Amino acid sequence: MTKQKKWNNLASDTAERMAQASQFIGSGKQVKAEDTVALLEAVIRPRDLVNIEGNNQKQADFLAESLLKVDKSKIYDLHMVQSAVPLASHLDLFEAGIAKKLDFAFGGPQSGRVAEFIKEGKLELGAIHTYLELFGRYFLDLTPKVSLICAYKADREGNLYTGFNTEDTPAIVEATKFRNGIVIAQVNEIVDKLPRVDIPADWIDAVIESPQPFFIEPLFTRDPALIKESHILQAMLALKGIYAEYGVRSMNHGIGFLTSAIELMLPTYGEELGLKGKCCTHMILNPHPTMIPAIEEGWVDTIHCFGGELGMEKYVAERSDVFFVGPDGSLRSNRAFAQTAGHYAIDMFIGGTLQMDPYGNSSTATANRVAGFGGAPNMGCDAKGRRHPSDTWLKCGQEQPNLEEVIGKMPRGKRLVVQGCETFGEGLAPSFVEELDAWKLAQNAGLDLPPVMIYGDDVTHVVTEEGIAYLSRCKDLETRTAAMRAVAGFTEFGLKADPDQTRRLRDAKIVMTPEDLGINRDRANRDMLAAKNMQELVTWSGGLYEPPARFRNW
Amino acid sequence: MTKQKKWNNLASDTAERMAQASQFIGSGKQVKAEDTVALLEAVIRPRDLVNIEGNNQKQADFLAESLLKVDKSKIYDLHMVQSAVPLASHLDLFEAGIAKKLDFAFGGPQSGRVAEFIKEGKLELGAIHTYLELFGRYFLDLTPKVSLICAYKADREGNLYTGFNTEDTPAIVEATKFRNGIVIAQVNEIVDKLPRVDIPADWIDAVIESPQPFFIEPLFTRDPALIKESHILQAMLALKGIYAEYGVRSMNHGIGFLTSAIELMLPTYGEELGLKGKCCTHMILNPHPTMIPAIEEGWVDTIHCFGGELGMEKYVAERSDVFFVGPDGSLRSNRAFAQTAGHYAIDMFIGGTLQMDPYGNSSTATANRVAGFGGAPNMGCDAKGRRHPSDTWLKCGQEQPNLEEVIGKMPRGKRLVVQGCETFGEGLAPSFVEELDAWKLAQNAGLDLPPVMIYGDDVTHVVTEEGIAYLSRCKDLETRTAAMRAVAGFTEFGLKADPDQTRRLRDAKIVMTPEDLGINRDRANRDMLAAKNMQELVTWSGGLYEPPARFRNW
Repeated sequence: MTKQKKWNNLASDTAERMAQASQFIGSGKQVKAEDTVALLEAVIRPRDLVNIEGNNQKQADFLAESLLKVDKSKIYDLHMVQSAVPLASHLDLFEAGIAKKLDFAFGGPQSGRVAEFIKEGKLELGAIHTYLELFGRYFLDLTPKVSLICAYKADREGNLYTGFNTEDTPAIVEATKFRNGIVIAQVNEIVDKLPRVDIPADWIDAVIESPQPFFIEPLFTRDPALIKESHILQAMLALKGIYAEYGVRSMNHGIGFLTSAIELMLPTYGEELGLKGKCCTHMILNPHPTMIPAIEEGWVDTIHCFGGELGMEKYVAERSDVFFVGPDGSLRSNRAFAQTAGHYAIDMFIGGTLQMDPYGNSSTATANRVAGFGGAPNMGCDAKGRRHPSDTWLKCGQEQPNLEEVIGKMPRGKRLVVQGCETFGEGLAPSFVEELDAWKLAQNAGLDLPPVMIYGDDVTHVVTEEGIAYLSRCKDLETRTAAMRAVAGFTEFGLKADPDQTRRLRDAKIVMTPEDLGINRDRANRDMLAAKNMQELVTWSGGLYEPPARFRNW
Repeated sequence: MTKQKKWNNLASDTAERMAQASQFIGSGKQVKAEDTVALLEAVIRPRDLVNIEGNNQKQADFLAESLLKVDKSKIYDLHMVQSAVPLASHLDLFEAGIAKKLDFAFGGPQSGRVAEFIKEGKLELGAIHTYLELFGRYFLDLTPKVSLICAYKADREGNLYTGFNTEDTPAIVEATKFRNGIVIAQVNEIVDKLPRVDIPADWIDAVIESPQPFFIEPLFTRDPALIKESHILQAMLALKGIYAEYGVRSMNHGIGFLTSAIELMLPTYGEELGLKGKCCTHMILNPHPTMIPAIEEGWVDTIHCFGGELGMEKYVAERSDVFFVGPDGSLRSNRAFAQTAGHYAIDMFIGGTLQMDPYGNSSTATANRVAGFGGAPNMGCDAKGRRHPSDTWLKCGQEQPNLEEVIGKMPRGKRLVVQGCETFGEGLAPSFVEELDAWKLAQNAGLDLPPVMIYGDDVTHVVTEEGIAYLSRCKDLETRTAAMRAVAGFTEFGLKADPDQTRRLRDAKIVMTPEDLGINRDRANRDMLAAKNMQELVTWSGGLYEPPARFRNW
């Protein structure tokens, strides 16, 4: 009991590094852009856990590029713990040997290189996570020692303004700074007075005005002109067979043309079904431009956002009754809280998938791309810790014929998890398969488990252009498979459907075709869309929405 | 498309209220304590959603008392949305008609009054949540319009220091302030310079130096002197049959004497089993005093805390390699992030229960007390969105004989959820029952569902003084029930065990008695405890732990 242990090694190690870095750090924690590489060499050590901030909507790209320029004999084998690796520089770090191990959530355009580098031994994969799960590990066993973050502005004291795209910053900074780590921020601009303080200067160690504004991509913008009639038919099915059937008020819409079609059909088909005020009143969602018509028509009470979306800045600021905004009037996004609400508070997740197996497991993995999960598994699952009821959640729970086998005579609700796909997807690849490509990927990349985006016991509904399979109403795995075959059309998987069984499933309302739901397929055309192109979205917004150049053709 | 809608009603409503309040708000957003009631009357309107901060470790008690003094003809029917209602004043608000509806997570000492008020129609229950779930709803459909929070200190500009007990504050303030709501803080002290800024002044509307420091209770302190031999036997079972068996590195310990016993036996029995460095290295946990010996012996790498614990301030500050601390050296707790890690990152939750039914559903509800859930359901469940593997999680997943029925030929891991109880609990009430009292409570309080703390499909292990039931190894509900009967001892429930079946379950390692595990019951005595009383904990801490007066008898 009288040991002479040292209990502040983390703090003294950090103090030592910061002493080395102090020559580069001026008043207000400012560092000159040209000293960035030297700063990183001063504060980073081999095998450190390092986070480079970056998610769908903003990237600490200058800091990533700078890290690539450090002396590789001094800094190597870093363990990167970060949401996403979408930039070439993120993988170049592994190519160069500066980084060695990766724990992440989303690969984006670098997914192929992640798989390749694993095979070649250039990259050791920790695990693939969902965002909120990775944030959780920041506070347990994957705490960054050094975090390279980004913000719009800093003031002369080092306070940060993360503004429209706050996203992951609070989670990263808190985990790092309160575990005696080091936080370095790139900002677009240093100003005298911030619109609002988002991160106190006390939580930041160095601020760099980067030569270029940070990289940002409009990932959640879908041009209505590209929506096809098959999307519109699926959207009609979803609206009548699911939204109306369960009275779904709160939800998240995954990315894709099906959900964009649904958004654009709220003021048309949704209105016709009498859903206004009864559906889609509360959403966890990035500021999707395709939501503008529904918002203008008064459908939505509240939207809380993971991140921002390029071009939506002014629109959001002028619709502060709907969006979360700061005292300065600009959006407050926060991925940790949006995902928390997405996991626990919403009644439905609807998104697309690439492949489903006979058990309902779905995946966006292909054999040679470690794509990651992003946020989908966190929202596309039945949150087991949820305890508050809603009519939607209770109805879906009551439908389950096999609940008693699981928890005995005890009622429980269930989140709606809807997977939409065309029977044949991109390149006419079938969406229903006997075995997921995720198995091949697991083998190729040496994963412990095939990377399943959403597990079969979590999926409640599958929507294709053939109809809806109500998986929550299936009493066993065999019925589940049969219901999926019934909506799998002319895929090899679908051709195995037994017509008699399909008939029985339709009678039992476990499978519903457009006809069963009273939907006229002829009406599934682009007249259903409240806005048919980007320009009409701008018009709906009263000129407030400013689409990025690549979406403008007028 | 050319409507003249107003889209900033929230902002203008708040501006109007703040204009009325401005007469009471001085420089640095300071309000005199004597103006508090008038301030609340200026900013609160009937039927507002209002949050009074308070959780296990700190309470905005002055603001709660002040709200009770408002003019009831001006302010009534408030909808309270808050973590906990442990103070008399929280329920007095309903008695007085100032509040009408309640959405919460934990009742504590007021649980009986909550049930009574529901019956009498004085309180309309929204729902009972787990903490993180309620935080999620703050960002969706239960956003507070006015939040009454508490902090240790404010500076002259209105920045806040939440210090050792940050807890729920960031979640509450962010949801309220960024939805154009109003945040009022009571602080113990206004100072020139804060040790660190935790909440920027931009996020706060008014600051009041309260006449008394906020109320705080040492809820997680267990006196080792009160640990019984039956707890020690259970702790030996858990350590050998679960911690060692599964190599559990990361976990949360629920509150109670079983987990306190385990903590105090890490340096003794745990050491003997060779678990040091292999178990309990990463924890999500309040700073439990009973962890001191294990920490001093070098068992623990990291602890992240929901909140603080009275008396542990200096100890934590001096053990910054283990705890998350701020640049000022004091603990950074944060319930939202700790619960996030507790849900997604840890491999095991172990806690106690009052009652279990034949299906494994457990509850702490009694017929006339709406106790709430706190954080248990969030950690005591199999987080369905989890995707990262660990050996512990994979092993538990592989054990499940019925997984294929659920998701087909697809492997998946499973969180360990351990429920510990003596066969007869307090007042010799049996812990195993044919039907949970939760059913009676649901009827009495008009709940949609019986309030189940942990559902049967989430519980993987039940530990009693009779042995361990490995529910994760049970192929169906019947086997699960039989395994529980086998460890239910002389309760009516246990007496129904079929000795032959129990024999078969022991052979199959689905039930393990102390003898099956090679545990000598005679060793289950207080010599196993590294510290036998509070004074020995202080000694272990080198005098850094300063127990509250009520725990000092020397």
